[in-house]
Amino acid sequence: MDANLQVLLASRPQDAVDESNFRIVQTPIPPVGPGELLVRNIWLSVDPYMRGRISAAKSYAAAVEVGAVMTGGTVGQVVESRHDRFKAGDHVVGHLGWQRYALSQGTGLSIVDAGAVPLSAHLGVCGMPGATAYIGLFEHCAPRAGETVLVSAASGAVGGVVGQLAKIAGCRAVGIAGGPAKCDFALRELGFDACIDYKAGGLPGRLRETCPSGVDALFENVGGAVMDAALEVLNPFARIALCGLISDYDTDDPRGLKRVRSLLVNRVRLQGFIVTDHPRLYQEAVARLIRWVAEGRLKYRESVTEGLSNAPRALIGLFKGENFGKQLVKLE
Amino acid sequence: MDANLQVLLASRPQDAVDESNFRIVQTPIPPVGPGELLVRNIWLSVDPYMRGRISAAKSYAAAVEVGAVMTGGTVGQVVESRHDRFKAGDHVVGHLGWQRYALSQGTGLSIVDAGAVPLSAHLGVCGMPGATAYIGLFEHCAPRAGETVLVSAASGAVGGVVGQLAKIAGCRAVGIAGGPAKCDFALRELGFDACIDYKAGGLPGRLRETCPSGVDALFENVGGAVMDAALEVLNPFARIALCGLISDYDTDDPRGLKRVRSLLVNRVRLQGFIVTDHPRLYQEAVARLIRWVAEGRLKYRESVTEGLSNAPRALIGLFKGENFGKQLVKLE
Repeated sequence: MDANLQVLLASRPQDAVDESNFRIVQTPIPPVGPGELLVRNIWLSVDPYMRGRISAAKSYAAAVEVGAVMTGGTVGQVVESRHDRFKAGDHVVGHLGWQRYALSQGTGLSIVDAGAVPLSAHLGVCGMPGATAYIGLFEHCAPRAGETVLVSAASGAVGGVVGQLAKIAGCRAVGIAGGPAKCDFALRELGFDACIDYKAGGLPGRLRETCPSGVDALFENVGGAVMDAALEVLNPFARIALCGLISDYDTDDPRGLKRVRSLLVNRVRLQGFIVTDHPRLYQEAVARLIRWVAEGRLKYRESVTEGLSNAPRALIGLFKGENFGKQLVKLE
Repeated sequence: MDANLQVLLASRPQDAVDESNFRIVQTPIPPVGPGELLVRNIWLSVDPYMRGRISAAKSYAAAVEVGAVMTGGTVGQVVESRHDRFKAGDHVVGHLGWQRYALSQGTGLSIVDAGAVPLSAHLGVCGMPGATAYIGLFEHCAPRAGETVLVSAASGAVGGVVGQLAKIAGCRAVGIAGGPAKCDFALRELGFDACIDYKAGGLPGRLRETCPSGVDALFENVGGAVMDAALEVLNPFARIALCGLISDYDTDDPRGLKRVRSLLVNRVRLQGFIVTDHPRLYQEAVARLIRWVAEGRLKYRESVTEGLSNAPRALIGLFKGENFGKQLVKLE
C-alpha cells in the first residue's frame, strides 16, 4: 500500500483563499484498531460552505483547526474493516476530508450502491448539494404548481438541481448564472424555462422582462447585488430559501442587501437553512434523487480536477466561478 | 355645524417629507345619503406606514392620490346616521383620514365602548399599533418563556407594546431606543429588562453585553445599522418579525443590511408582515389588548399634537424621532 497524502489547513485566509493557506504532507497510513475501518478515498467534494470552515468567524459548524486535515465530503472504498457495519470492498460516502486514506469509526459514513448511479453523484446531485436543493425548495420555498421559482447560481451543483425539481413540481424555473455557456447549459441541458447571464449587466431590468408575473419563490445562493435584483421582482407572500451568499464570503465588509424593503412590503418569508439540520428530510431527499437520476429525470454536470494536491486550486477556482457544475477532485 | 376642514396631499415628497407636501382646505360638510353616516373625528393617528402611502413607490396598499384627503386612522363620534349599524352618538374607530368631518358607508368602521379604555387608545395600544405588536410577536417571533426578545424603537407605539407582551409571555425584553429619556421610559414605565440608547454609539458592543445569551427573537421596526447590530447577536434558529424599516423610508438609496450572513449561519426565519393581512388575529389582539389595558397590565404613552392643521408637522416629527410614544392629533 502506498503512503497517505493529506491536505492540511496551513493558515486562515484573510480575504480571498490562496494556495498558501494549505500544505500537502505525506504521512504513514494509520493501523486499523478494533471498531475502526480504513477507507481509500476516490472522490473529494469541493463546496462553497468550505469558505466558512476555514475562516475564524463564527459559523454553524466548528472551524477546521490550523494544522488539521481539510474537511470535506468523500466517496471511497473500504480497504480494511474491524467495524461491524462495514466490510472491505464496500463503497462509502461520508466526510473523511482531503486525504487519500482515512481511518473512521463509522460515524456519518453510509454504504452506497455502486451500481445505481455513478459513485461521484453521491457527492453532488444525490448527495449533500442535491439534498440541499430538495430541502430548500420543498421545505422552505414551498412552491405550488404554476408559480415562478427563481434560483441564482443556476448551473451550480445546488442550483441546477433546484431548477429541475421546480420543473418536476410544475413550476416555471428561471435561473441566474454567470456567462452564456452556463446559461445555455441551464436552458438546454437542465430544462430551465429561462436563464439570465448576470455578467451581461442590466440584471434588474432583464429579470423584470423574464418574469412578467413576478417571482413567487427565490432559492438564493449568491447574495449581494444579484439577490437585490431578485428582491425587486418578488410577489406578495414570496418565500426565500437562503442557502448561500457566495458573493459575500471573501470579505469582512460585505456589500449586503439594499432592497430590504421588498421583504416588508411583500410580506416575504425568508428562511436561512443548512441541509444537515434536517436529517429525516435528508434521507427522503437522497432516496428520491437517486431514483430520479437513475430514471434520467435529473441531469447534472461535473467539473473534475485530477489529483489530491490540486484540491486547493479547485476550491479557489470555485470562488472565482471557474467550475461548471459540481466541483470534484478525483484521487489518483 | 361648522365647516369641514381637510388636509390634502399636495405633492409627493422626494426625500424627506415637508409641510409643502400638504395643503389645508375648507370644504362644505357633505349631506348624508341613504346608507351613509357622518362622523366628526376626535383623534387622528399619525403612523410610520404613512410614508409609503404618500410615495409613488409600489407598496402593499394603494398610494394616496395627489389632491386627495390624507389617509389615516381615526376615532370619532357619529353626528348623523342613515346607516343600519350606526346611530348618532356612537363612537367609531376606522380610517376616515385627516379631516374634521367624514362621510362613510360604514366600511371598515367599528363601534367602540367609550368607557372601557380612553378613546385615543383605540388608535394606539388597543388599535392598529397594538395589534401589530401582538401579531408580530406571537405569530412571527413565536417566543417561548425564558427566551430573549429584542425590539427596536422600543418606546414607540408598537415597540412599547411588544416589550410588555414579551414580559407577559415570560421572556426577557430588551429594547433599543433613541436617547436616555426613551430608554428610561421603557425601563421604568414599560418594564423592559434593559433598553439601549443607540444614539450613545457603540450599539453592537453594548448589545453583546446586554444580551450575553444572545437574542432568540427580534421585532424589527428600524432597519439599517440598528438592525445590523441586532443581527450580530442572534442565536441559532432565531425568528425576526420585520415590521418596519423607518431608517430607510426617506431615501431612494437605502443603506440596507450588511450582516445578512447571520441569517444564513443562524438559520434565521424572517417574516415581513402587515397587520391587516391577519383579520382574525386582529380581532383577537384588540380584545386582549383592551382587557390588559383596562387591568393596568399594559402601559402606554401618547404624544399629542393639537389641531388638524398641525397634522403634517406631527408626521414630519415622527420621521425625525421627535414623538415620544404613540403620535396623535387631537382635533379642536
